[in-house]
Amino acid sequence: MKAKIYVTLKPSVLDPQGKAIHHAVETIGYHGIKDVRQGKYFEVTIEDSFSPEEARAEIERMARDVLANPIIEDFRVELDSDS
Amino acid sequence: MKAKIYVTLKPSVLDPQGKAIHHAVETIGYHGIKDVRQGKYFEVTIEDSFSPEEARAEIERMARDVLANPIIEDFRVELDSDS
Repeated sequence: MKAKIYVTLKPSVLDPQGKAIHHAVETIGYHGIKDVRQGKYFEVTIEDSFSPEEARAEIERMARDVLANPIIEDFRVELDSDS
Repeated sequence: MKAKIYVTLKPSVLDPQGKAIHHAVETIGYHGIKDVRQGKYFEVTIEDSFSPEEARAEIERMARDVLANPIIEDFRVELDSDS
């Protein structure tokens, strides 16, 4: 089973890396871009012996404890049960 | 309009950062994790004057030229036309 985890900065937190990308793409001629924010993305493969509920619980715990910093980041978990 | 861009290493490319995360989560007691791969995630806000087709073309061009390295990475673009 595969899970996808998206980690993004909370909207109230400044994102200097995203600002740098925004500035860079404007410099090289991309117009019409209003904002860029960078996040993190993880693909995790889980043993098939887990039920979808167990897998989601385990992955959400891992995302909260290890992959994201809940003080400044939000995360979202998607489960691909067919893969 | 918002676009989400997911950049992942091609399956044939080794991901030492993902391997390190995998090892670390095993060490602290997460079991049943078979693999972890890390990618990048970008949220881009585009001027509303763009049509969805123009926005997708612009964002795909930006992803290919700037955000991803097409030699070792794949990317996927999703358009949220309602936001």
